[in-house]
Amino acid sequence: MWGLESEEPTEERRRELAAALSARLGTELHPPRIPSVDELELRPPRVRVPSSLDQFCFQDTWERAYHSYGFDRCDHAPFGRYPNPPDAVAHPRSDSELEAVLSWCDDHGYCVIPYGGGSSVVGGVTPPEDRGPVVTVALDRLDRVLEVDDVSRAARIQAGVFGPALEDQLRPRGLTLRHFPQSFTGSTLGGWIATRSGGHYATNHTHIDEFVESVRMLTPSGWLETRRLPGSGAGPDPNRLVIGSEGILGIITEAWMRVQARPRFRATAGIRFASWEAGYEATRHIVQAKLWPANLRLLDPELAAGSAGVEGGQALLIIGFESAEIPQRGFLEHAVGLARTCGGVVADDELMVDDGSGQATGRTGAVGAWRQAFIPGSGGLGGANAGLGLVAGTFETAVTWDRWPELDHAVRTATLAALAEACGGGTVNCRFTHVYPDGPAPYYTYVGAYRSDADPLGQHAAIKAAASEAILAAGGTITHHHAVGRQHRPWYDRERPELFAAALRAAKQAVDPAGIMNPGVLVDPPNADPPGR
Amino acid sequence: MWGLESEEPTEERRRELAAALSARLGTELHPPRIPSVDELELRPPRVRVPSSLDQFCFQDTWERAYHSYGFDRCDHAPFGRYPNPPDAVAHPRSDSELEAVLSWCDDHGYCVIPYGGGSSVVGGVTPPEDRGPVVTVALDRLDRVLEVDDVSRAARIQAGVFGPALEDQLRPRGLTLRHFPQSFTGSTLGGWIATRSGGHYATNHTHIDEFVESVRMLTPSGWLETRRLPGSGAGPDPNRLVIGSEGILGIITEAWMRVQARPRFRATAGIRFASWEAGYEATRHIVQAKLWPANLRLLDPELAAGSAGVEGGQALLIIGFESAEIPQRGFLEHAVGLARTCGGVVADDELMVDDGSGQATGRTGAVGAWRQAFIPGSGGLGGANAGLGLVAGTFETAVTWDRWPELDHAVRTATLAALAEACGGGTVNCRFTHVYPDGPAPYYTYVGAYRSDADPLGQHAAIKAAASEAILAAGGTITHHHAVGRQHRPWYDRERPELFAAALRAAKQAVDPAGIMNPGVLVDPPNADPPGR
Repeated sequence: MWGLESEEPTEERRRELAAALSARLGTELHPPRIPSVDELELRPPRVRVPSSLDQFCFQDTWERAYHSYGFDRCDHAPFGRYPNPPDAVAHPRSDSELEAVLSWCDDHGYCVIPYGGGSSVVGGVTPPEDRGPVVTVALDRLDRVLEVDDVSRAARIQAGVFGPALEDQLRPRGLTLRHFPQSFTGSTLGGWIATRSGGHYATNHTHIDEFVESVRMLTPSGWLETRRLPGSGAGPDPNRLVIGSEGILGIITEAWMRVQARPRFRATAGIRFASWEAGYEATRHIVQAKLWPANLRLLDPELAAGSAGVEGGQALLIIGFESAEIPQRGFLEHAVGLARTCGGVVADDELMVDDGSGQATGRTGAVGAWRQAFIPGSGGLGGANAGLGLVAGTFETAVTWDRWPELDHAVRTATLAALAEACGGGTVNCRFTHVYPDGPAPYYTYVGAYRSDADPLGQHAAIKAAASEAILAAGGTITHHHAVGRQHRPWYDRERPELFAAALRAAKQAVDPAGIMNPGVLVDPPNADPPGR
Repeated sequence: MWGLESEEPTEERRRELAAALSARLGTELHPPRIPSVDELELRPPRVRVPSSLDQFCFQDTWERAYHSYGFDRCDHAPFGRYPNPPDAVAHPRSDSELEAVLSWCDDHGYCVIPYGGGSSVVGGVTPPEDRGPVVTVALDRLDRVLEVDDVSRAARIQAGVFGPALEDQLRPRGLTLRHFPQSFTGSTLGGWIATRSGGHYATNHTHIDEFVESVRMLTPSGWLETRRLPGSGAGPDPNRLVIGSEGILGIITEAWMRVQARPRFRATAGIRFASWEAGYEATRHIVQAKLWPANLRLLDPELAAGSAGVEGGQALLIIGFESAEIPQRGFLEHAVGLARTCGGVVADDELMVDDGSGQATGRTGAVGAWRQAFIPGSGGLGGANAGLGLVAGTFETAVTWDRWPELDHAVRTATLAALAEACGGGTVNCRFTHVYPDGPAPYYTYVGAYRSDADPLGQHAAIKAAASEAILAAGGTITHHHAVGRQHRPWYDRERPELFAAALRAAKQAVDPAGIMNPGVLVDPPNADPPGR
């Protein structure tokens, strides 16, 4: 699903799935034939890699085709479209190799795209089309936990490590980062930091931001490294300029991250509500009580039925607590008490509690069913959507509670209208991935069918644009945790204050005078933004 | 204590206190005679206020003398020293008056110093000496809660409101910001945001940063206003550029703040430990268990004895939980359980629990004694230090747990040595004001005596410098919540990454091209920093 070839479905499996989905959607799906790498003919590279770099800087077709995209490879690869590959792909193994490739690019004005797991769904690692040669710098060989500070519960970690390999290195110390974005298996620490990834915790410390103790980044002007500190009030937080910078300032190479003791105590329940509205009102009351559950995820009735087997048009709220030190039953009972006050239904014997004995919670009943559908690789369509002829996508936002009902209505209406127009119909569903005392972060999924008479990318774009317009107009953010990249630029430009854009452009210019770092993402070069933006 | 004339001690009271302290310190204190405003002769104003501004822009001696300083007025006022007053002090009552005064200053290149409560202890609102005319813009007439969103628990609040007036306006709605820095009575919302104030919550959401939903700031280039959002992942967070900007980018005029339901349930205990070391080890274990108590404040044995009556060289840990929705006894019991595991001593009947009936907690015993000593206006020396001939001050930092014991040792050693040198002796004590899973925020107080043969400001400066050097060398931050101002600049410049300073200077230049906003705070103008900083 996240670009691993080993997870790709076979040709036969794709045909089976397409047939099943055709029946379900009532329209015939035509899975395209996916070309192999040998059949691809890419534009010849526009740069010559000097011999000093050729041990870690490659130009073969697979490297260049693979790094042409982030997760949007799934939209393009099935059709063999690689019109704008990077000219070279570097895999530096040390600071000095990284410095060498960056200074080669800076000297020649080549664009540099930092590449983590390539899980961007917003075109965050896609080469720009109009800026000349592009060198993608993949961090995957910088993948070690370098140091662990058990006393402070922190670890110095290289940016290129993928989620599972990171957890593998922390586990023997009894520690975990507990950052499990949906892209966990196919994304990296550096990517999470660069994009302000949203992770495991549904409340309180939702973004990776809160777990960054210090960060190290190589810019074209040199190294920027912040001091390891648990907290500070010394001027605007330098970490916060790096976090979310999406590669436009430099390449994040490592970070001291706040890690956790591995949880031993857990308590989980799935609570049913008569309606979506009743569910989100209860969610608001629970999050405003500040019990800070690790999980507080609400599924709308269609998702509750489809992925957790909940019948009768009920919404499902999944609440989970966890701790390394303290039994969690009491916390869950407080939350369930609040939920019941708001009309929530759950039997006492449906509260699943692991009091340190290691029995699993949350793997049976509605919660277990949802878990199976949600966790990557554990079931559901997984990576199969791509080649099935489906127009399936997601978008997400966050909005204050006062505007939320209106936003939900407007977004569903606009997206369904766009699906009708682009695909002849489809479905839109919503869940909350993260929740704050002042508002939810709703996550929408939509599904329609490719039309043989339409450009499938145009179908996607039309649906996304309609949804994005509705989100902005209703007071939401263009992204809660998918980042901005190239795809969200038009709406990001309207969301952010214009003077902040001016400040960010100036800050970029200060550390990247030649403007080589991931151009076109977040900001344009100085004076390139059209007036009035 | 925070500049209110009504809180100043009488001449007679000052003499009594000086005599008592002379006995305690074993050295004779000589309180200076404090001049009245009529005796002051200030430098004539270097600007003429145009008639269009004269309804809210003043040049009388009181206004100019008062706004010559922040809290450091206490170091200067007793000696009648006002060598560098602002040339005019504006008190705008509306956006349009604010725009008018800022554009007058920008047109003429006058420096602008945004002024909230004037509680800065680091020279954050002091006119620069070498930059020509200075206009201080006091926000005190912009002091209203403009809008309350009960559903999202947020309020739109003008920046010039002082702590008590802010709470007075929220109380009838059953809400509270619960931001109670020690300067609460004499500081403002805008000042808290501009300086990343540390507040009520000792864990989790410690700084004002976490409560800012959106912010509005007038810069010389116009308005910068962020979108109200509970969370976002759209690029580097624009709020985080404004938060901590200490007036160098613009004037913060209002913010949407996350507010709280007023707590009804409380649970508090004071736990004794055989030593300072045992106390801080226990504190670490409790904060790492992530129960997120509102209060988790540790006093070293001398402070525990002096301000809470705890005998026998024991440290005192004060733990407090509060909630609007949920009884707190269980949370306190979990924390006390962890504390006892780490050697903490507290009897079951010393746990003070208010289960919504309104009985007071934390107002008796050791916790009550500490509260009396700490809360402004409730006792202790209060505003009396100033005119007593004492060299008394505070400094604070934050550091990761692995380096904390070494930092504490180094800071105490260096500060005591400086006190011996500058004052012939003195005392240094420490408490934790805020605590994080990865480290504490220790707060040091020192007391020595003025020497008749020394410059008292030089004494202060020598002590502060020695402490600051020790903090930086041991891996701490130059400030956890007192901000940078002018006083912390030399150490801040070494703490922050040089490339971050370059980015911040560029961002400032983008919104304040003439460099009029609070020059000398945080950064110098482009190219003005000495090389190698």
